Amino acid sequence: MTRAIAAVESEERQRRNGHRSAVVWLTGLSAAGKSTIARGVEAALFARGVQVYGLDGDDLRRGLCRDLGFSPEDRSENLRRVGELAAVLADAGLVVIASFISPYRRERATAGAAAVPAPFIEVFVDCPLDECVRRDPKGLYLRALSGELPEFTGVSAPYEPPERPQIHLRTDRLPVVQSVDLVVQYLEQTGILTR
Amino acid sequence: MTRAIAAVESEERQRRNGHRSAVVWLTGLSAAGKSTIARGVEAALFARGVQVYGLDGDDLRRGLCRDLGFSPEDRSENLRRVGELAAVLADAGLVVIASFISPYRRERATAGAAAVPAPFIEVFVDCPLDECVRRDPKGLYLRALSGELPEFTGVSAPYEPPERPQIHLRTDRLPVVQSVDLVVQYLEQTGILTR
Repeated sequence: MTRAIAAVESEERQRRNGHRSAVVWLTGLSAAGKSTIARGVEAALFARGVQVYGLDGDDLRRGLCRDLGFSPEDRSENLRRVGELAAVLADAGLVVIASFISPYRRERATAGAAAVPAPFIEVFVDCPLDECVRRDPKGLYLRALSGELPEFTGVSAPYEPPERPQIHLRTDRLPVVQSVDLVVQYLEQTGILTR
Repeated sequence: MTRAIAAVESEERQRRNGHRSAVVWLTGLSAAGKSTIARGVEAALFARGVQVYGLDGDDLRRGLCRDLGFSPEDRSENLRRVGELAAVLADAGLVVIASFISPYRRERATAGAAAVPAPFIEVFVDCPLDECVRRDPKGLYLRALSGELPEFTGVSAPYEPPERPQIHLRTDRLPVVQSVDLVVQYLEQTGILTR
């Protein structure tokens, strides 16, 4: 997202902040560990002086997306708005950490297109379904498997894994701190953060 | 807007930024001078090191609000989303400068409620209608007065002036730089900015 008439260009903001802006998009099944890793990255980046902000579904569904339900159309519109919101935050100079199941490739591509000219970093938070079902911290899989929750990603609705994610985290094997480190290292190696 | 689970609290962001966050909301007729003043405030605040970002209708109608038209319902939803977006930016630690005609008190009150706990500063960009018609930089009043543009604020749709704006700018009398100064001074005097 670029403003048509900007009193301050995004480049100037990024120069002053001492880092590039970016949209880091964590996708994966429910209980794969997205929010935990997102919070770890946000805390780690803030600690080193980065302007960083995490976006999470629950907060937005109480605000910006309050009018939306859980039909396929509404879920798609929800992610469209998240992508646009992330793009505004990136234009404002921030590194955005967005964690959303976002099961469809097309919707993630839409979010990526909205972010331009900011880089969009797709992070596949990859945990096998049986491990997610075993974890089930909110009891959602139990309800989905009993048929109580319709169209639940991984159970009764598809999850399309990223084909070429910038970062691939096997969270059934990696401890959280290592996943966080890998994201931070990627941001350093691509010049979004300076060391 | 406050996140339910925040890796970094808004207070910490504001402390590090060295200023409070806020939503500065400029309301007034088309051609009253809102965007010009907003850009002046954004540039002035950026120059003194503030994390500041300006929101304008045209940019958002190409992005977040792309699905909305100009019916009364859609205009109202447009402003609702702007209010929520401004609230997220304020939670991220920024001073937001929003310039929108926003003709109805109820809609401005909704934006103000979304901003909580960030202060919402209503700025009445007040220019008499005949002066706005005389300026008419985009030729919109000409079209509205000829009946070509229906429901045009000030011509064929009402504008409800703020009853107790935090800042009242008579832009037919004040040069732009003075209007900008008055906004900046207000932010200093209320402790949002440090001098």
